[in-house]
Amino acid sequence: MSTLRIGILTGGGDAPGLNAVLRAVTKLGAGRHHWQLVGVEDSFNGLLDDPRRLVDLTPQACRGLLVRGGTILGTTNRGDPFAWAWPDGRVTDRSAELAAAITEEGLDGLIVVGGDGTQRIAARLMATHGVPVIGVPKTIDNDLADTDFTFGFWSAVEVATEALDRLHSTAEAHDRVMLLEVMGRDAGWIALYTGVAGGADCIALPEIPYDVERFVHKIKERARRGRHFTMIVVAEGAVPRGGSLGAGVDGSQTTKVKAGSAAQTLAELLEARISGEVRTTVLGHLQRGGGPVPYDRVLATRFGVKAVELVREGRWGEMVCLRDNNVTSVPLVEVSQAPRRVSPDEPLLATARAVGIELGG
Amino acid sequence: MSTLRIGILTGGGDAPGLNAVLRAVTKLGAGRHHWQLVGVEDSFNGLLDDPRRLVDLTPQACRGLLVRGGTILGTTNRGDPFAWAWPDGRVTDRSAELAAAITEEGLDGLIVVGGDGTQRIAARLMATHGVPVIGVPKTIDNDLADTDFTFGFWSAVEVATEALDRLHSTAEAHDRVMLLEVMGRDAGWIALYTGVAGGADCIALPEIPYDVERFVHKIKERARRGRHFTMIVVAEGAVPRGGSLGAGVDGSQTTKVKAGSAAQTLAELLEARISGEVRTTVLGHLQRGGGPVPYDRVLATRFGVKAVELVREGRWGEMVCLRDNNVTSVPLVEVSQAPRRVSPDEPLLATARAVGIELGG
Amino acid sequence: MSTLRIGILTGGGDAPGLNAVLRAVTKLGAGRHHWQLVGVEDSFNGLLDDPRRLVDLTPQACRGLLVRGGTILGTTNRGDPFAWAWPDGRVTDRSAELAAAITEEGLDGLIVVGGDGTQRIAARLMATHGVPVIGVPKTIDNDLADTDFTFGFWSAVEVATEALDRLHSTAEAHDRVMLLEVMGRDAGWIALYTGVAGGADCIALPEIPYDVERFVHKIKERARRGRHFTMIVVAEGAVPRGGSLGAGVDGSQTTKVKAGSAAQTLAELLEARISGEVRTTVLGHLQRGGGPVPYDRVLATRFGVKAVELVREGRWGEMVCLRDNNVTSVPLVEVSQAPRRVSPDEPLLATARAVGIELGG
Amino acid sequence: MSTLRIGILTGGGDAPGLNAVLRAVTKLGAGRHHWQLVGVEDSFNGLLDDPRRLVDLTPQACRGLLVRGGTILGTTNRGDPFAWAWPDGRVTDRSAELAAAITEEGLDGLIVVGGDGTQRIAARLMATHGVPVIGVPKTIDNDLADTDFTFGFWSAVEVATEALDRLHSTAEAHDRVMLLEVMGRDAGWIALYTGVAGGADCIALPEIPYDVERFVHKIKERARRGRHFTMIVVAEGAVPRGGSLGAGVDGSQTTKVKAGSAAQTLAELLEARISGEVRTTVLGHLQRGGGPVPYDRVLATRFGVKAVELVREGRWGEMVCLRDNNVTSVPLVEVSQAPRRVSPDEPLLATARAVGIELGG
Repeated sequence: MSTLRIGILTGGGDAPGLNAVLRAVTKLGAGRHHWQLVGVEDSFNGLLDDPRRLVDLTPQACRGLLVRGGTILGTTNRGDPFAWAWPDGRVTDRSAELAAAITEEGLDGLIVVGGDGTQRIAARLMATHGVPVIGVPKTIDNDLADTDFTFGFWSAVEVATEALDRLHSTAEAHDRVMLLEVMGRDAGWIALYTGVAGGADCIALPEIPYDVERFVHKIKERARRGRHFTMIVVAEGAVPRGGSLGAGVDGSQTTKVKAGSAAQTLAELLEARISGEVRTTVLGHLQRGGGPVPYDRVLATRFGVKAVELVREGRWGEMVCLRDNNVTSVPLVEVSQAPRRVSPDEPLLATARAVGIELGG
Repeated sequence: MSTLRIGILTGGGDAPGLNAVLRAVTKLGAGRHHWQLVGVEDSFNGLLDDPRRLVDLTPQACRGLLVRGGTILGTTNRGDPFAWAWPDGRVTDRSAELAAAITEEGLDGLIVVGGDGTQRIAARLMATHGVPVIGVPKTIDNDLADTDFTFGFWSAVEVATEALDRLHSTAEAHDRVMLLEVMGRDAGWIALYTGVAGGADCIALPEIPYDVERFVHKIKERARRGRHFTMIVVAEGAVPRGGSLGAGVDGSQTTKVKAGSAAQTLAELLEARISGEVRTTVLGHLQRGGGPVPYDRVLATRFGVKAVELVREGRWGEMVCLRDNNVTSVPLVEVSQAPRRVSPDEPLLATARAVGIELGG
Repeated sequence: MSTLRIGILTGGGDAPGLNAVLRAVTKLGAGRHHWQLVGVEDSFNGLLDDPRRLVDLTPQACRGLLVRGGTILGTTNRGDPFAWAWPDGRVTDRSAELAAAITEEGLDGLIVVGGDGTQRIAARLMATHGVPVIGVPKTIDNDLADTDFTFGFWSAVEVATEALDRLHSTAEAHDRVMLLEVMGRDAGWIALYTGVAGGADCIALPEIPYDVERFVHKIKERARRGRHFTMIVVAEGAVPRGGSLGAGVDGSQTTKVKAGSAAQTLAELLEARISGEVRTTVLGHLQRGGGPVPYDRVLATRFGVKAVELVREGRWGEMVCLRDNNVTSVPLVEVSQAPRRVSPDEPLLATARAVGIELGG
Repeated sequence: MSTLRIGILTGGGDAPGLNAVLRAVTKLGAGRHHWQLVGVEDSFNGLLDDPRRLVDLTPQACRGLLVRGGTILGTTNRGDPFAWAWPDGRVTDRSAELAAAITEEGLDGLIVVGGDGTQRIAARLMATHGVPVIGVPKTIDNDLADTDFTFGFWSAVEVATEALDRLHSTAEAHDRVMLLEVMGRDAGWIALYTGVAGGADCIALPEIPYDVERFVHKIKERARRGRHFTMIVVAEGAVPRGGSLGAGVDGSQTTKVKAGSAAQTLAELLEARISGEVRTTVLGHLQRGGGPVPYDRVLATRFGVKAVELVREGRWGEMVCLRDNNVTSVPLVEVSQAPRRVSPDEPLLATARAVGIELGG
């Protein structure tokens, strides 16, 4: 085999572990297999901008990356090559231009690290223009249907759980109802795991429109037992029963929800019904930033190594995934378009209810 | 000396280290000097409510308190005994009732742990009704004029600095302007220390109304050097030059500012002037919760020990304080009413400017 | 069903998450199902000592336990009821005495949280004396054959990984070889996961007797690339090829290895072959202490809930376990006696080698 | 003023905050004042080795340094230029050679960041060869006589306090006596602050040779109160009354003590006197590694800025220092040669005793 020349990029929102994937791919691909490894900056944009923005990825360039948050390549979820939005309002298909750039740069293939949107673009690039791609899934929300876990998820849960721990002591001292809003527009995994890990009293998930009276009942029942504070974890996409968030939640992945609005809605509903103070905290970007926890460092490393193996085996068009603790792969065209949501028979829901957590429905 | 019977309470917002003060007072007062130590719940309210809410503080009851956030006595900043606001709207002076309760409970004196408002009440209780009091200062904002540092401050700075560290990596990956709002309505100490410790590019303090163009200049100058992100720390009480916060900032300690509004104001001003995304994070209660850092555990322990010593020396009417690393005391009547703000000749301002931080004015 | 009266104990070395199990069992068993839940202190000893040492476990008693390290019941791995070692040297079978105590206390069954030794005693108690038992597995080393993960493991890996991160910067500044010894006498799971998560250059596992020359080669090869420091993770039970630890490792679970000896042996072998400094750090008990990470809080909660369900279903003689992310159970008599060791086809070994980690064999 | 060309080096053991000093000096010196700033690798060695090892320090090169442990310049405490120990055993004075190298490299002066040994060399270089030097003090032990605090100290105390917190829960679960050995050969500051911050029961300092019977008394008295565990913090240089460490402690700064021997000595003395288990943990290098806490980031930044100001004012021969929260300077020739030890009238000793900590003498 002559020397391979492979591109790699990171797309979508960032997640702790992206740099660890880059490091693993580089250590194995460039370090051992002597590939020329080319980092593309800011998702596909680095290949479409003029001049192109590409960087050589060498083992030297990857020192310290295992523990570092963010992505040295930069990332963005703006600029779909198939529907490029120009500043002047036009939308054009630049995918052929992108494929041409990949050929001009002499790339034998592209490793695409990103969420479901990025993976769909990758699959289409291969289908339409024959660009050889390998996918590595990334979603901090852990809502990809074809992998049990994605890196970044446990890091986000750890940040959110530490926040809940902190709020706990101040809620107890001040007799307060505390709402913590965590990420999760369509799927409530972070809220569910954080609520169980942090000992929340109530959890509001996007999948279970909540009856606010059930939360009120929990708050009052606790007060009767001398517990004059209540901790509530709210996912970004949680909505009251019969209610909706902003312009309406349609269950699709394109839902746009303003950070903080779920917490605010619930706070207002509660304040109308109870006498004590309700305070909200919106974690927002704190959940994406910072270095990955060990679980995510290991998973990201395994994913990166698998991506290199798929390239070497010529299994283009596959996406790395985790199934029952095994790292394997799935054809990109078979990747489910729908987010993996918390289903009614999810065992952790039963666990949450068993330890007395009110789920609002 | 016959067995002393001493009350202790915590008032105002909570701060990491309150429990550590209670533990130190209990270990020394009850454990060694065999005082009867009576904890009053929820600031002065525990003595005014019917029935009274008092708990025995014994060394056994204080196990684990050194590291624990919040306060086991509860706290509140509602209910000034000299101007008690009843639910029906009446305001009456209940201070004589409070003094009578202290006598009825057989208390030889009261250790009052709290902020400037609580200390003023304590001083007035002693002046008006002859109640023997000892003050222990508490303000997470570090804005008490008569002590160099208060416990809780460095814990808040650590939480805020970790948040800034986390946001840094995601800002860098996404080419964003990130605003982090931290506590500080009248004084910008948390913002200033956090900004220097976390390597912020800009800091907005209550003491320096900012010229937003200076922040814009900084953002653009960084972009010219290839740094397409900027980290800004904003104190709750920061205002644009010529502007004001909500119903107006009057510099008094009673300023009421809605959390998040300072960040929102600055974000809107910036978004009108630059092209990139501006994202805000409001830390809020996360800065008050959680266990104290070692610095605050040591300081709270020293303060608690000093309070006991003042009682034993009969130096009623004094407040513990820290001056040049020495724990000493000051008469409560001499305690300054004005908050200690960041003065123009504060050395850390010069340090911040020296490492290139833009202070907006 | 009349009110159940159930005993619960924790045996063996402690692990982060034991208190979280106790909390979950109490919240569900006592809180919802209204059991009388009796905590037995210090493993089986609390039932054998005179007077017996038993405590009521109520939801109130379990406040704050989710996040707290250790076990409020105490634990010990001394005192096998079937072979009780008296201070005077006699060894007698006290199992009938134990069964009688369980009857006398009116216990309908016993939930036994502990490692393989403790589970064997539980199985034998049921087989020999008909005591109804439910097992909950606990091993910080993650070396139980019948469960994919045990709580405490990821907490230990996080402590060890943070230590490796810390040592990394000082090793780099000082051009040193740094050895970090972590737990794992028979199985190297903590060492393997920590090494991958912390970016070690070499890992020495009990399962792979190491050829020290391979580590020396790695150190020298790094120096040639200008990397004058090397990070090595050593499991307690790691031995050089052809060598042995102390009085001999026999592969059984009764191996006694003095903490620090594995690191010392390797350090001496290295110092005889290279010129730089070799420094060792032995983590020891730091890996067992402290609160559980969110992963372990969730897992411990799931295990506790499952134990209560098994009791309610009358499935005595079963042990809770995790298989492919599902919490299920296995008959205690079928629980494997041999520890689950790192097998040669463990995928993470291949991952470690892929990112350039030298495993010594 | 024509463009200055200034060298900077870091000497002695590393400490969290060294990189933060380098960053501050670079941001101000190179970034604003346009100096040519030359980093010398591995203390003075980078100027004596052939070829010399020098690196340009630019603001770009300093990105991320504020939070990073270690020192990018490397450090060593081997190789005194005035008494250079060659591999063949000869010792020669290479100071003239060093001064010549400084001249040849066109350096207008040298900023020397290091401990007392490094500062003495700097002072002698100036006195003997006229090399213009500015000193920045560094000692993780906080035992320099001329500065209230040095960066790195609070970071070390935080690591040690977290370790004590972790050990606490496992000690309590297992009824153990736990010894934690922390740094401090001649001065017990880390042990004293850690012991108070972490709620130790006993502290053994180098300054107070301990009577082991006092520790035994404390252990037994606790057991009588139902507390069957005891936490002891031991400084590296702590010795029993009448005893000595290794080949003898002479109180000088050249004392060489093997890490772990103080804990081992005390453990053996205790085990001969009590029945329970005694376990030791030696923190060692974990205290030096990792990033600095906010306190140390601020202090290191202030020190770096002050060093640049001293250069600009031409105040060669001065060392930066902290006095009563003010950053100022002191002539290097006046810097005390004796370490600042914990004196009998240190207020924190009284505080420790007040909360019941046994100091052994």
